[in-house]
Amino acid sequence: MQDMVHKLIQKNKTKIFMFILDGLGGLPVNGKTELEAAHIPNLDEIARKSATGLHIPVDYGITPGSGPGHLGIFGYNPKQWEIGRGVLEALGLGIELTDRDVAIRCNYATIQEGLVKDRRAGRIPTEKNRALTARLQQEIRQIDEAEIIFSPGMEHRFAVVLRFPEPLEHNSDMVNDTDPQKIGKPPLKPEPGNPQSERVARIADKLIKRVAELLKDEEPANYILLRGISQVPRIPTMEEVFGLKALAIAVYPMYRGLARLIGMDTPPVNGDIKEEIDFLRDNIEDYDFFFVHIKKVDSYGEDGNFEGKAKKIEEFDSFLPEILSLKPDVLIVTGDHSTPALMKEHSWHPVPVLIHAPYVLGGLSGGFSERECLKGELGIFPAYHILPLALANAGRLKKFGA
Amino acid sequence: MQDMVHKLIQKNKTKIFMFILDGLGGLPVNGKTELEAAHIPNLDEIARKSATGLHIPVDYGITPGSGPGHLGIFGYNPKQWEIGRGVLEALGLGIELTDRDVAIRCNYATIQEGLVKDRRAGRIPTEKNRALTARLQQEIRQIDEAEIIFSPGMEHRFAVVLRFPEPLEHNSDMVNDTDPQKIGKPPLKPEPGNPQSERVARIADKLIKRVAELLKDEEPANYILLRGISQVPRIPTMEEVFGLKALAIAVYPMYRGLARLIGMDTPPVNGDIKEEIDFLRDNIEDYDFFFVHIKKVDSYGEDGNFEGKAKKIEEFDSFLPEILSLKPDVLIVTGDHSTPALMKEHSWHPVPVLIHAPYVLGGLSGGFSERECLKGELGIFPAYHILPLALANAGRLKKFGA
Repeated sequence: MQDMVHKLIQKNKTKIFMFILDGLGGLPVNGKTELEAAHIPNLDEIARKSATGLHIPVDYGITPGSGPGHLGIFGYNPKQWEIGRGVLEALGLGIELTDRDVAIRCNYATIQEGLVKDRRAGRIPTEKNRALTARLQQEIRQIDEAEIIFSPGMEHRFAVVLRFPEPLEHNSDMVNDTDPQKIGKPPLKPEPGNPQSERVARIADKLIKRVAELLKDEEPANYILLRGISQVPRIPTMEEVFGLKALAIAVYPMYRGLARLIGMDTPPVNGDIKEEIDFLRDNIEDYDFFFVHIKKVDSYGEDGNFEGKAKKIEEFDSFLPEILSLKPDVLIVTGDHSTPALMKEHSWHPVPVLIHAPYVLGGLSGGFSERECLKGELGIFPAYHILPLALANAGRLKKFGA
Repeated sequence: MQDMVHKLIQKNKTKIFMFILDGLGGLPVNGKTELEAAHIPNLDEIARKSATGLHIPVDYGITPGSGPGHLGIFGYNPKQWEIGRGVLEALGLGIELTDRDVAIRCNYATIQEGLVKDRRAGRIPTEKNRALTARLQQEIRQIDEAEIIFSPGMEHRFAVVLRFPEPLEHNSDMVNDTDPQKIGKPPLKPEPGNPQSERVARIADKLIKRVAELLKDEEPANYILLRGISQVPRIPTMEEVFGLKALAIAVYPMYRGLARLIGMDTPPVNGDIKEEIDFLRDNIEDYDFFFVHIKKVDSYGEDGNFEGKAKKIEEFDSFLPEILSLKPDVLIVTGDHSTPALMKEHSWHPVPVLIHAPYVLGGLSGGFSERECLKGELGIFPAYHILPLALANAGRLKKFGA
């Protein structure tokens, strides 16, 4: 798919906006989904004039994590590219990863008599995390041949990058998580899954011991657990594949990190929907494609907060006139996956999508919801087809064949 | 697809029921399909609350036999696995096939002056078949290097297995049918299609001659015709691929045989729908997945008996409350293919499917029929996606990626 699209790319001055309401899709509670319960007159109105449908993020019955969910909507078949959690986390924290790096997602944890007492060290405040992580960085700059780079995240989370002197072989990251997943158990030792990952396991093990020594008098964060040990996959950029200079506008680190992996510019953004739109406006001249990520829809879904999720969608709806006033040539509104409040987690259900552009049928959906989008001209289709459709609507794809 | 699903399997205590109304899909006669003409209040009611759609058994325009039809609904892409008719028949008759075996579906036939007079020997009674087949088995136990195993079926049908001393090479079964398909023609000689099938052709030819000699004074069954000469494909089991301990509940041998090929337990069951449901109830604790096969829907379709097919569907409908009282976590009702009474044969048309489970949209189909299922949330999709959807709904699939 990408190969064919790539050969047909033609550039122009059009602007494509992709607004991702994270975890948008839902399921009925008292007969209505979150989208159906929300009062969203603006989305309903453009849905009636747009190409609508439902996208399948990965495949039938497959519940996507955030990585595969976003790859799909960015036009990449998520079955072809695997992104480790450590890589996502490190990118999101602003670390520019290279092919010499292994990234690890870490938790501060509490250990007592060799057993994990709290896998999150009581969710220590972010400020405390920053102080601890700064201290670790000051004390630990190198282990054997690897440079060690720490970066604090939110609450108990941080990332560590092991930077080696030369590019790593493929599959150098096959080292298990050390988080035992249950309290009352000892942390696991990092073990190599193959010969080329032995050096990573060795350094990870030394890292854990050094940190434990440094933190031994801390309370409650006296230990670390390692997860998602991973190398950067080499994914071609959106510029290379689709000819798009792309800007990611996302408040949360992980989504900027993911976008950076496919070559988007990812400056930090603070605030919420309003600030994101302001940021878009300020940068509209410099890019072709704008990915705007709205996290809280998913967060409310994961909390099982049906009302909160619906309200957040309503809030987005209220900004739609302002978004349209920026005159995108193509406006896409969808999610990266479903997070039904009913389930309190990501799910496999297809996600409503609308493509607002001049060359659509429209007139098929009565509004913007799972059941109304089902009536739309796009049908039910794999997420990675959204981007070629956007390119086509933007006049960015030449005819195929004579 | 299977690879991805396989990696995400997590086991739990859920029960998945799959009721297959063989040949369920139909076409309109006087404006209504069999499903539309049938009075099926229970199916209509759960269809309104279920995920509905239409599955494509194999591909657009492709009419499936029973083998591919069932592989698809069991979660296997039927284009990847070929199952010979002889293999199906032999398995259905309870023969445990090995990789040393070639199975052949045989008919008793009537031959006169070297020409086929009746391809089914007047559909001799099953009792007569048993007597004849027992005699053949007594007289013929070995031909050259192959052990010969006979097994009687219904009426004029029986199976023969050629069991060789060692595992057979791939494609050792490329030998033509000997049934000329028309009366008044001579039976065909079994010819090898490649070098590795020469031994099978040779032994098949000797078998026909030995049998003809033994039956020469019989009337009307004085000859045999060979069809579907085939080896067992090596298909991974449902336990291996999907983590499901599966029970097949089917009265007809062929469907049990097919289920056994993918590792289902297939004890014999007598009776009809009522007895099948009783059997399910008696075994519910011991399995995760229950395939229940209802044959007669297809049989009426093949007879062109529109009324009979609709009545059989109505009969199934009347058992639905009892099925639901067994509290399946996921209930699937569909067919393996369409058999429109209008056509009197299997057809390529997509088949209505409903998945009754807690995490569905529902509210899209007004009832259970071809045209109403088209409005459903599953859309039109390949049959082999049904099983991953069932697994997802049963909480048996982990999230993909971080």
